[in-house]
Amino acid sequence: MTSPFGKHILAEYFECECTYLDSEPVIRELMLEAASISGSTIVGNIFHHFSPHGVTGVVVIAESHLAIHTWPEFRYASVDIFTCGTHLDPWAGFEYLKEKLQSRKSVSKEIIRGTTDEGFLDVSSYSGNVSSGQGALPLIQSRIRGM
Amino acid sequence: MTSPFGKHILAEYFECECTYLDSEPVIRELMLEAASISGSTIVGNIFHHFSPHGVTGVVVIAESHLAIHTWPEFRYASVDIFTCGTHLDPWAGFEYLKEKLQSRKSVSKEIIRGTTDEGFLDVSSYSGNVSSGQGALPLIQSRIRGM
Repeated sequence: MTSPFGKHILAEYFECECTYLDSEPVIRELMLEAASISGSTIVGNIFHHFSPHGVTGVVVIAESHLAIHTWPEFRYASVDIFTCGTHLDPWAGFEYLKEKLQSRKSVSKEIIRGTTDEGFLDVSSYSGNVSSGQGALPLIQSRIRGM
Repeated sequence: MTSPFGKHILAEYFECECTYLDSEPVIRELMLEAASISGSTIVGNIFHHFSPHGVTGVVVIAESHLAIHTWPEFRYASVDIFTCGTHLDPWAGFEYLKEKLQSRKSVSKEIIRGTTDEGFLDVSSYSGNVSSGQGALPLIQSRIRGM
């Protein structure tokens, strides 16, 4: 069985602490920490505060990305934690944010990325010297480490 | 029935044109154009080229974000197109990228964001003067326009 490219957590945090949701510096700090806690290697980030309220931000990591969009007026935030490689723990980031955003109700999904409908990584077009089985994972990890 | 916050398309593009997948300027241009074609308002972007190959990038839009991660060695790219508001067409961006990346096989999912398991936007914690029905959509649109 081939390895998937990554895990993508789609999270909805409801009933959050309003003050945090409208602060760009706090949200940036929380997202950077969530990335670190997940074991990610941070490459860069971009955050924006909207008028009259709301924060949007993305942390680009070597292993993909984390994103957040907040709606303080609804005490709600949507978060994506997309990580590749077996050494990361995106759910640790999810739990961290749930606690810090003081979300009393959350809904989350985990989607495996890089798969076909049959659930396998499609490496049929790979032109290198690797089998369609174990070879995929080491290649992905080498790409992740190289910055 | 309340309005969802947004549509999130998760796309897997297989069997793509390798030269494009490893070019940061080309991938950035394609993603900015995909954002425009979807009707988005671009706020900023961040792109990174990895060693030995691969591009990661995010376009932050007023209506959420677009993201891409490429694996040229697999001729594969994962893309997210997350947009809020009823005036956008994220699928137009999906089709544009499929054509430009020359992907011969793609898999995609559309996830509605901002919903509980029952499928409704949870506005029960909103403290403003709005009903839980029609009021949610105008509020979201006013947030989107204010930059």
